[in-house]
Amino acid sequence: MSEPLGIALLGCGTVGGGVVQLLRNRSDHLARRAGRALELRHVVVRDISKQRSCDVPRGLLTTDLAKAISDSRVNVVVELVGGTTWAKDAVLAALAAGKDVVTANKALLAEFGTEVFAAAHHHGRAIAFEGSVAGGIPIIGVLTQGLAANRITRLQGILNGTCNFVLSAMTDDKSDYNTALAEAQRLGYAEADPTLDVDGSDAAHKLAVLARVAFDVAMLPKQIERRGIVDVSPLDIRLAGELGCVIKLIADAQLHDNELTLLVAPVLVRRGTPLADVAGAYNAVRVVGDAVGDTLFYGAGAGAMPTASAVVADIIDMAIGRAQATFKAMRLWEPTTGIRLRSNDDVVSRFYIRLTVADKPGVLAEASGLLAMEQISIAEVIQHEATNDGSTALAIATHLVPAGKLRAALDRINQSDSLREPAVYYAMGL
Amino acid sequence: MSEPLGIALLGCGTVGGGVVQLLRNRSDHLARRAGRALELRHVVVRDISKQRSCDVPRGLLTTDLAKAISDSRVNVVVELVGGTTWAKDAVLAALAAGKDVVTANKALLAEFGTEVFAAAHHHGRAIAFEGSVAGGIPIIGVLTQGLAANRITRLQGILNGTCNFVLSAMTDDKSDYNTALAEAQRLGYAEADPTLDVDGSDAAHKLAVLARVAFDVAMLPKQIERRGIVDVSPLDIRLAGELGCVIKLIADAQLHDNELTLLVAPVLVRRGTPLADVAGAYNAVRVVGDAVGDTLFYGAGAGAMPTASAVVADIIDMAIGRAQATFKAMRLWEPTTGIRLRSNDDVVSRFYIRLTVADKPGVLAEASGLLAMEQISIAEVIQHEATNDGSTALAIATHLVPAGKLRAALDRINQSDSLREPAVYYAMGL
Repeated sequence: MSEPLGIALLGCGTVGGGVVQLLRNRSDHLARRAGRALELRHVVVRDISKQRSCDVPRGLLTTDLAKAISDSRVNVVVELVGGTTWAKDAVLAALAAGKDVVTANKALLAEFGTEVFAAAHHHGRAIAFEGSVAGGIPIIGVLTQGLAANRITRLQGILNGTCNFVLSAMTDDKSDYNTALAEAQRLGYAEADPTLDVDGSDAAHKLAVLARVAFDVAMLPKQIERRGIVDVSPLDIRLAGELGCVIKLIADAQLHDNELTLLVAPVLVRRGTPLADVAGAYNAVRVVGDAVGDTLFYGAGAGAMPTASAVVADIIDMAIGRAQATFKAMRLWEPTTGIRLRSNDDVVSRFYIRLTVADKPGVLAEASGLLAMEQISIAEVIQHEATNDGSTALAIATHLVPAGKLRAALDRINQSDSLREPAVYYAMGL
Repeated sequence: MSEPLGIALLGCGTVGGGVVQLLRNRSDHLARRAGRALELRHVVVRDISKQRSCDVPRGLLTTDLAKAISDSRVNVVVELVGGTTWAKDAVLAALAAGKDVVTANKALLAEFGTEVFAAAHHHGRAIAFEGSVAGGIPIIGVLTQGLAANRITRLQGILNGTCNFVLSAMTDDKSDYNTALAEAQRLGYAEADPTLDVDGSDAAHKLAVLARVAFDVAMLPKQIERRGIVDVSPLDIRLAGELGCVIKLIADAQLHDNELTLLVAPVLVRRGTPLADVAGAYNAVRVVGDAVGDTLFYGAGAGAMPTASAVVADIIDMAIGRAQATFKAMRLWEPTTGIRLRSNDDVVSRFYIRLTVADKPGVLAEASGLLAMEQISIAEVIQHEATNDGSTALAIATHLVPAGKLRAALDRINQSDSLREPAVYYAMGL
């Protein structure tokens, strides 16, 4: 058996604790899988005296990053601090010191991937990042290896466990948004400040990483149009159910003729299709390749041990040399395919529209007339009895229409006197 | 960019045709993914003059295996002939000639894996076999890499597309077995002689390969208990539906305390769980790992292009050097974990029992009495009105019970005069 692989861990929070636990309790198993021992040499933290859930031997803890990454017995630096300031400097310093890097930092890759990957190539080092997206689901390996023979044409993911938990609770338990979010926080599925989860930013960061890997396209997360789940109402969830659908926050990438559209938004997903059944805090990624056809990959999208499973898989790949070979051959984050981003206005799908209208004659005729003016034809209509305030919800499922055209029609409809509040719309089965 | 990777293809049938098509039509994309060109140098076939669906340049076709594998410009030999006679000799000859081998031959690996892998190690060569199980689903990569940090505790697969198509048709279209099988044959999902599919042998071969990889356990396919789908009746499918379940042919591996149970059998899978929704000829593999938890991998389990997707992924891994590094580090097919096989008699699950009984008083009391004698308690009973011949079907869902105990109780029940035919039983939600 070869020399042990020396590891410096940066950060010892939730995921870091899981990694320490695997490396310490599973050493024989991991050595067999890696062909050599995996040895934790340093755990770099901000405050050594802090109480931690993970069981790190005192002697390994240090606040001295420079010492850890310059140690000649360290081969791989594992960055689990997160963020794009200290973590970025630490990763660049580790690469410059001749260390390979494992990271689960989606923000760093999505925002500064070009710079970080160029530094790795410059120093002849490798970066592995299976833990950065979809927790324990080995989706990066699937895209870079298992499906490497394919041209990927579609990628759809449920990538944010908080949003999926909240929407699932609103669907299954008839909770409202705030109750469901509070329950997610109580169970540890949502942060104290869940803004970046519920507004779609976290899913957009993850989609940015997946799109780089799947499509070799040059872009930044801010270019991804996003709508969060904050405005999804129990009424929309109920009406979606009546249309045979559940509402999911979907991160979507579609390729047509070398043009890629990217979107994060709530979508009405038809019951009985695989993404509709992804429950609670689970994640799933659907990938369509031109050779393999339709595939789906499902698992825990977050949490200490599932994400540690992905991080330690990367460490094993480094020990075996697979990660380095992949990194050198694939030249990720160097766009070569000539794929361009395209506006979502041209993306064709069916849409769900909910209009809150005055309960008086002619309202449906007016709304359908305005849709007809944009050549939008109606597949299904649901109208329930008026509520106490004299308004009624009118749910319309359209046939296929480009998003831009749908939005133009809604702009007209929103000017109607019959509307009590702006029209709500979501794509169906995007 | 490095030297091209030279390839000799053995066999040019359905999957071989798909591989040729990818290598020829997708050369730029593959070269980018592999870091070097992939060049097809020989296609070894039995009869050059035979008409083929695939578009192979005449000059590449040869009947001369020795010439192809001794060509110094060939690095990788891709075996797609199948079977365990000619294919085994060819693979051993290729390894002896210093070539790495890619194969999709599950029978060869399941029956002669120990010999073939030992030869590869002896000659310092590697074998990759992503295409051998579950078609386009990259499950071998998932087990050897993506989930490598885990101790796998459970593996459940829908691994035979023919059986899943037939059972899905019997469920959705209310077809009987023969009609559904004829439809599968018409659509190309079933062979002219489907015996090895419908009797569970094909799934057992695939389970044998997966179990070797996931559990490092020494065994042969003949050690896997199997029940096919031939006896599954429309009545069982209907009664399963009334119990909230669908019947699927499941290949199952469960690890408890270093003891592994392996089984291929029809199982009542609860609706709303991921395996229940695997439709038509699709495959899926559920993997439970101690760190990652529950995962599922879904895709096309057979067919020219999905399987070619897996085979070409292996070729790319060979070009990059990942497959060789994996093979050397992991020493597959060399059992080291001390896991032993255990009889299925001890596996605890709920069971579905169908009794065809005379429609007379006391029959339910007699059956439930015999179950009670083995301490088997009943969770649910369905009894429908008697048919014209005076017999009636009694469906019983039990609480948890070891399979051996259940079978002992059924042996007693089968001796009852009230029974018109032997009791039928399947595990529920195994």
